[in-house]
Amino acid sequence: MLLRMIIIGELINSSISDINRLMQEKDEHCIQQIALAQVERGVNYLDVNAGTFIHQEEEYLKWLVQTIQAVTQVPLALDSPSPAVIEKALEVYEGTPMINSITAEEDKYQKLLPLVKGYRAKVIGLCLNGAGMPETAKERLTIAYKLINDLDKDGIPLEDVFIDPLLKPISVSGQYGLQVLDTIGGIAGWNSGVHITCGLGNISFGMPRPNLLNQAFLAMALCAGADTAIVNPFDDYLMSIIKAAEVLLSRDPYGREFIKAAREKKLV
Amino acid sequence: MLLRMIIIGELINSSISDINRLMQEKDEHCIQQIALAQVERGVNYLDVNAGTFIHQEEEYLKWLVQTIQAVTQVPLALDSPSPAVIEKALEVYEGTPMINSITAEEDKYQKLLPLVKGYRAKVIGLCLNGAGMPETAKERLTIAYKLINDLDKDGIPLEDVFIDPLLKPISVSGQYGLQVLDTIGGIAGWNSGVHITCGLGNISFGMPRPNLLNQAFLAMALCAGADTAIVNPFDDYLMSIIKAAEVLLSRDPYGREFIKAAREKKLV
Repeated sequence: MLLRMIIIGELINSSISDINRLMQEKDEHCIQQIALAQVERGVNYLDVNAGTFIHQEEEYLKWLVQTIQAVTQVPLALDSPSPAVIEKALEVYEGTPMINSITAEEDKYQKLLPLVKGYRAKVIGLCLNGAGMPETAKERLTIAYKLINDLDKDGIPLEDVFIDPLLKPISVSGQYGLQVLDTIGGIAGWNSGVHITCGLGNISFGMPRPNLLNQAFLAMALCAGADTAIVNPFDDYLMSIIKAAEVLLSRDPYGREFIKAAREKKLV
Repeated sequence: MLLRMIIIGELINSSISDINRLMQEKDEHCIQQIALAQVERGVNYLDVNAGTFIHQEEEYLKWLVQTIQAVTQVPLALDSPSPAVIEKALEVYEGTPMINSITAEEDKYQKLLPLVKGYRAKVIGLCLNGAGMPETAKERLTIAYKLINDLDKDGIPLEDVFIDPLLKPISVSGQYGLQVLDTIGGIAGWNSGVHITCGLGNISFGMPRPNLLNQAFLAMALCAGADTAIVNPFDDYLMSIIKAAEVLLSRDPYGREFIKAAREKKLV
């Protein structure tokens, strides 16, 4: 049997205007409630991102870590483009963190590697190498291959690595869905032991009815070989589609969890 | 660009109790309305099946053909396990029919082949060979390979062939979803030019919330390489997921149809 899907909740992100306001108000209670509501919906990690607070990102990210860790032991994915900010957040973090994200950009890789090792962190490896955003599956696979090999050589257990092929909006190019599905299939075929994830909401950015696009794409990504995704767990239909997908991919033996969820009216 | 998905509507089937009753009453008007409602929802073929009327199947199937062809030119998929019944239905059929289905069972194949040729019919090739129901992807692929080769050698244009890997209920074995997805991927990899379809509802038979399982599986099947399915077009959410999948698989350039459907409030 395959392992169950690993769900990373995306809602604690300062780019979401309601969350941004709560962070500015340092509203501990509401942030904690949103964290707990995601946990209640079944997430395995909570992403935390304070990226829009350009000069105060470190302060806000540390505040998020401490505020949320006061109420839940679900691990956090420390989400920042800045290795320095991640380092500071790690100093106040308790338990095993996830770092979101390392890339194949040499300088960033060298700065984050000792943190990943030192904290025995899980780490998202984003398919970026400093040569511009990848367009094709081939470009993504080249970067993923280098990242996986480098992390392996540098002593990071590959079961701690979550490769993110970098999902871009289908509104920009009709090819971006297929390119990422092909990337996922390619990485899965290597059987290296890494997890494969994606920031699901990126696919539907700029389109009407993003929920339908996210739901269909998640089922496709899981079929192609992804076993984790960064999602909005408040999309109840998406969460139900995930439970259905687990049955179909034989990750929910005898559909026990699905049937239980149906009986308890936890499916939309 | 890939071609758009081909949708086969499954509702005119005597195994559905409401339809069975309408057929017994020879209620032309209601049968016609159900056919037209499926067409309105975007089906490309209408499956017609009178299989439960054991000794009157021929009479009822011919009645369905004539009743429905009186109001729509959308082609019908003549669905019967009996080559003799299909032959009789073809005699009253107008236009280019679809035959559902030929198999690799020698006797059946030899009886149906001249009909497929003579009527230049589209034909569903079901992965069955008389040696019991296939379990694994390998068994299905072996049958599909033989069917495709035989039909090709016998002069049937492969673009007229719709291979159905034979979807069985996930409630019977948790492996049936994966086996069929692997079969679809394998057939798609041959690039033979055949279409790949499946009777979607079979996957969820015996499970609660079949709609969620059908929706997730359809997205997966399309991702794996299917380009058609036999579905219930009255499942509005499924039809919306199909429209989303077309965008994601680059079959709806610039998402034009999806955006138009959203604007016209034709998405759930």
